[in-house]
Amino acid sequence: MASTVNKTAHPFDKTQFEALLNRRFFYAPAFEIYGGVAGLYDYGPPGSSLQANIIAEWRKHFIIEEHMLELDTTIMTPSSVFETSGHVARFADWMVKDTKTGDVLRADHLVKNVLEARLAGDKEARGIAAVAPSADDKKKKKKGAKAVAVKLEDEVAQEYEVILAQLDNYTGADLGELCRKHNIKNPDTDNEVGEPQLFNLMFASSIGPTGQHPGYLRPETAQGHFLNFSRLLEFNNGRVPFASAQIGRSFRNEISPRAGLLRVREFTMAEIEHFVDPTDKSHERFSEVRDVTLALLNRHVQEAGGSQITHMSVGEAVDQGIIANETLGYFVARIYQFLIKIGINPERLRFRQHMGNEMAHYATDCWDAEIHNSTGWTECVGCADRAAYDLSVHSQKTGHPLVVRQALKEPIVTEKEVAEWNKKNLGKTYKQDAGVLQKLVEAMEEPELLRLKGELAQGSTTVKTDDGREIQLTPDVLSIERKTFKQSIREYIPNVIEPSFGLGRILYTLLEHSFWSREQDVERGVLSLPPVVAPTKVLIVPLSARDEFAPLVQEVSSKLRRAGVFSRVDDSNTSIGKRYSRNDELGTPFGITVDFASVQNRTMTLRERDTTDQRIGSVDEVIATVTDLVFGNITWDEACVRLPKYDGVQAVEYIFIS
Amino acid sequence: MASTVNKTAHPFDKTQFEALLNRRFFYAPAFEIYGGVAGLYDYGPPGSSLQANIIAEWRKHFIIEEHMLELDTTIMTPSSVFETSGHVARFADWMVKDTKTGDVLRADHLVKNVLEARLAGDKEARGIAAVAPSADDKKKKKKGAKAVAVKLEDEVAQEYEVILAQLDNYTGADLGELCRKHNIKNPDTDNEVGEPQLFNLMFASSIGPTGQHPGYLRPETAQGHFLNFSRLLEFNNGRVPFASAQIGRSFRNEISPRAGLLRVREFTMAEIEHFVDPTDKSHERFSEVRDVTLALLNRHVQEAGGSQITHMSVGEAVDQGIIANETLGYFVARIYQFLIKIGINPERLRFRQHMGNEMAHYATDCWDAEIHNSTGWTECVGCADRAAYDLSVHSQKTGHPLVVRQALKEPIVTEKEVAEWNKKNLGKTYKQDAGVLQKLVEAMEEPELLRLKGELAQGSTTVKTDDGREIQLTPDVLSIERKTFKQSIREYIPNVIEPSFGLGRILYTLLEHSFWSREQDVERGVLSLPPVVAPTKVLIVPLSARDEFAPLVQEVSSKLRRAGVFSRVDDSNTSIGKRYSRNDELGTPFGITVDFASVQNRTMTLRERDTTDQRIGSVDEVIATVTDLVFGNITWDEACVRLPKYDGVQAVEYIFIS
Repeated sequence: MASTVNKTAHPFDKTQFEALLNRRFFYAPAFEIYGGVAGLYDYGPPGSSLQANIIAEWRKHFIIEEHMLELDTTIMTPSSVFETSGHVARFADWMVKDTKTGDVLRADHLVKNVLEARLAGDKEARGIAAVAPSADDKKKKKKGAKAVAVKLEDEVAQEYEVILAQLDNYTGADLGELCRKHNIKNPDTDNEVGEPQLFNLMFASSIGPTGQHPGYLRPETAQGHFLNFSRLLEFNNGRVPFASAQIGRSFRNEISPRAGLLRVREFTMAEIEHFVDPTDKSHERFSEVRDVTLALLNRHVQEAGGSQITHMSVGEAVDQGIIANETLGYFVARIYQFLIKIGINPERLRFRQHMGNEMAHYATDCWDAEIHNSTGWTECVGCADRAAYDLSVHSQKTGHPLVVRQALKEPIVTEKEVAEWNKKNLGKTYKQDAGVLQKLVEAMEEPELLRLKGELAQGSTTVKTDDGREIQLTPDVLSIERKTFKQSIREYIPNVIEPSFGLGRILYTLLEHSFWSREQDVERGVLSLPPVVAPTKVLIVPLSARDEFAPLVQEVSSKLRRAGVFSRVDDSNTSIGKRYSRNDELGTPFGITVDFASVQNRTMTLRERDTTDQRIGSVDEVIATVTDLVFGNITWDEACVRLPKYDGVQAVEYIFIS
Repeated sequence: MASTVNKTAHPFDKTQFEALLNRRFFYAPAFEIYGGVAGLYDYGPPGSSLQANIIAEWRKHFIIEEHMLELDTTIMTPSSVFETSGHVARFADWMVKDTKTGDVLRADHLVKNVLEARLAGDKEARGIAAVAPSADDKKKKKKGAKAVAVKLEDEVAQEYEVILAQLDNYTGADLGELCRKHNIKNPDTDNEVGEPQLFNLMFASSIGPTGQHPGYLRPETAQGHFLNFSRLLEFNNGRVPFASAQIGRSFRNEISPRAGLLRVREFTMAEIEHFVDPTDKSHERFSEVRDVTLALLNRHVQEAGGSQITHMSVGEAVDQGIIANETLGYFVARIYQFLIKIGINPERLRFRQHMGNEMAHYATDCWDAEIHNSTGWTECVGCADRAAYDLSVHSQKTGHPLVVRQALKEPIVTEKEVAEWNKKNLGKTYKQDAGVLQKLVEAMEEPELLRLKGELAQGSTTVKTDDGREIQLTPDVLSIERKTFKQSIREYIPNVIEPSFGLGRILYTLLEHSFWSREQDVERGVLSLPPVVAPTKVLIVPLSARDEFAPLVQEVSSKLRRAGVFSRVDDSNTSIGKRYSRNDELGTPFGITVDFASVQNRTMTLRERDTTDQRIGSVDEVIATVTDLVFGNITWDEACVRLPKYDGVQAVEYIFIS
């Protein structure tokens, strides 16, 4: 049996956590030696690998599993595309300016920070909670609202809670009103702020040498899917539903990003656009996820100022109309499964429905996967039903029909009254009015056409032009006839269900959920990343860099490579214990020690990161076992059945245990 | 034995080739329904997969094989970084304006197009070659220089050849002079062009809401490596040499891109920065590539107006000083091996050395891997020795030392004469001159210090200030003493060898090299992509979409997935022959047919794309064989030994052979 581990012996310490990520170069502020730029981060080797592994798993879970069509479209986009999509007019946040310094703040974040600080101060004043200085506050010059122990009136405190629950639902004018009513000032300067103004979040540039072709960096990859819809449909042999998928960089010129990887100006997204028949949003594989239980926070609860979670199966949620349709429900469940698979704590994952005003301009229903972390609940995946919005507007603008043409099994036969003109007489009799008359009659609904038909049968009829003239028509010019129409093709604009993943946010929250400190030593941090996403799967640790270990290290390394297991050798000039500690911080799940006994007897020890258990076996047994562990074929408990406990008394062990 | 195939029965037809890529959505002009934007392309499903597979192989060949440190840095970059790196001042092309229309042309391309057209016309006039209208010319409105059959004087023709060979070596003034001297006009309008002006190729933008922070989209990923050098070095435990690697998007605002994927404004690059000791550019693994034979076009040949290739081993090239050092040579050879592995024709690959003026501002030696294609020779990989340029300028600008500190095995012991001051007497005696004196003496070289020492031993000495005064010094103020210094750390700025890959250009030339038409039917195009990069490895073709085939299709598909082989099912409603033809165009190397015999006898046929040979075996035999084929463990000839020829007479076969 594996040893048990207590991962919650120490409370989460953000300072220690961030120091670890920085020390091991998971990521770092970009252009750090130039003083950095807010909202831009570089990923170092372990961060890059972690991201690449999350992406690889995403590809398997979504693209390969569901036969999605992958795309790779450009970031630079001519402005006409975003004018049509509505982003030029509406992809914006409300900002306020400090009336004295001119500093710019995001209006909703300002309200949130100030009210949360007041509520925290209130709690302290009531003796409910102490206002512990957060890790951030310890840093010098840290800006933001500070909690001060001041008791609030009961009604005021309650009003603040309601405002916070509805924060995403306010307009710019609402936010301005809130600032005035609740005396919300810039906490950095204590100055008043001006009226909220819209700031467009797209980075602008210009394409070509003449400066005459404005462009934007895409704020999402979605438009690249929509513009290629006809080609994708053709590639899929004209069949719907199908999905396209794309992983790529997007850009948002955030007003004042301050939340590390959680709010950045440049980020990697993974987006799926699933195209469906608007009259049939059922999903073929819905039965496979029907019983997946989710934590849901629906729109009505929030609009009433609450934040109670309901636990229910996705089947129930769709049956009760809480989630709009099966396809949306299917993807919400698949998102849940993906996040759990890569190591997100299910207890800290909820799906929150957007409120009316909060929804993007194109969406008809939207659920965010929110992951809890040290800053609260953070949206990490959006799952929206964009309806036919995008395909419709691009069709209209370009005249290129982005539609599905479906051959009907049984043609639809309809009859209707139709105007038949004698073109020669029409022109001769009515001259310049001929066109006016045609337009008028052809726009008529059936009852009016029947009136004309009746009157024509009596000899003549009259129609009224828009400018008020009455014109007489006779049967030698016009007849109304009943005709049969057979429609064998149905043409429609598909709807789009869009799961959209912010990979940086997922990566960051995953790192938080994975971090803990050893019970016996709070300074020894560990990242319990699951093998599927861990940057390195196996660390090979020779006792030293001496030549006698080289052949075996080489052998183990190449056998692991052939088995598809990514390993690294650490032969640096420091103790085995220190090397393992370093790799606990890097999230490496398994370690293999190569020592004198390995060279003599061809045995190796296998170490598990979380328990620090060590087992022993022959070279090939250990390689086979660790391969099974990495691919999730067996658990560590099962590995312990295969390999006996290692309780050797060599120097190796002493160093390690210390 | 496998059948033989004649891939050169038909000449390369670019129109047919491009039609295939477009029809199968390898890539397409971005924003096509909006009229497109020059130099921006989207990759569809097969193009995305091909690119992803090239990247995966690149990761294996370089990053994993050489334990490189992978990075993922931002695209958006504050202008200060590119001011330091020299890109703001120098990353530019020469453009000329049509004096009447204001149209903008790239100066060197203008010269090239016009002179090449004149030479082609000359050849035709001499009866050496017919000027066949190129595929491009057939399109309406196609712009560019047209060849007209006009004979040139021998000396003129020769002069043109020399100009073309040296084209990359001209300055802006040179290009302007060439246009005047040779009467080069805008071929689209026949108007004269103005003086060449520099146009910076970086896309500009602005970071944050105030508009006060100018930024650029990176034109290369390299700066992201350099700025993180200290962190990378620390991650590598302080050891040099090591390499970082990054795969990502870069942007260049090309003046007038017209060459499809070969000259684009947004592209995916893969870059390696290999950091080495400037005093030791040997490479540990050079012996492994010493015998790789390369086609080299060196600087001297080009500067003499020639373009003769020399075939020699990389070992010889380094020994003879043609390639500057072992590390540069090592990477040139590794680049060669990579390109051949993914399917580039070695006969159409050469390494061209940059000429003096052509080299980027940071480089000391540079070799381009040029791949031949329908437009001529195209640079696809650059391999430059950037020396210490970038790290030095960033160090200088930021004050952050980007250096290696190497512990010396044997400390270097040196002795030198040192000035020792009696600070108290110095201040008292010389007051405001004290500082001046100190500076003067401390800047002295050893011989002068020895003069002072000698004179002080006699009682006093004099020094001359910059403003001409002579000041006397005595032993109570200054003594000169011989001291021993021990240096145990050597500090240096490493040099950088940079292999830089343009993945879009590699992808495009690979597609050209892979394309051919069936001998018996020129309309049947095939892409002979090697399995390692083919978008789909195995096509599973059930006789029809009927339910009876579904379980076996499912079984084969999931067994292949478990074996790590990416397959697709094509059960579309068309003949098996048509489905295979479609997948020949997609470059799918193997096909498995599931028919009634498969369901009854559990046998399947295996088809090879190039030969269209079909073999037969049991379900598991075929799966095992195709897996070995895909991973390159066996050749098709070897597969033919395992599986007997299929010469069934079922309908399947007839459809296929037709």
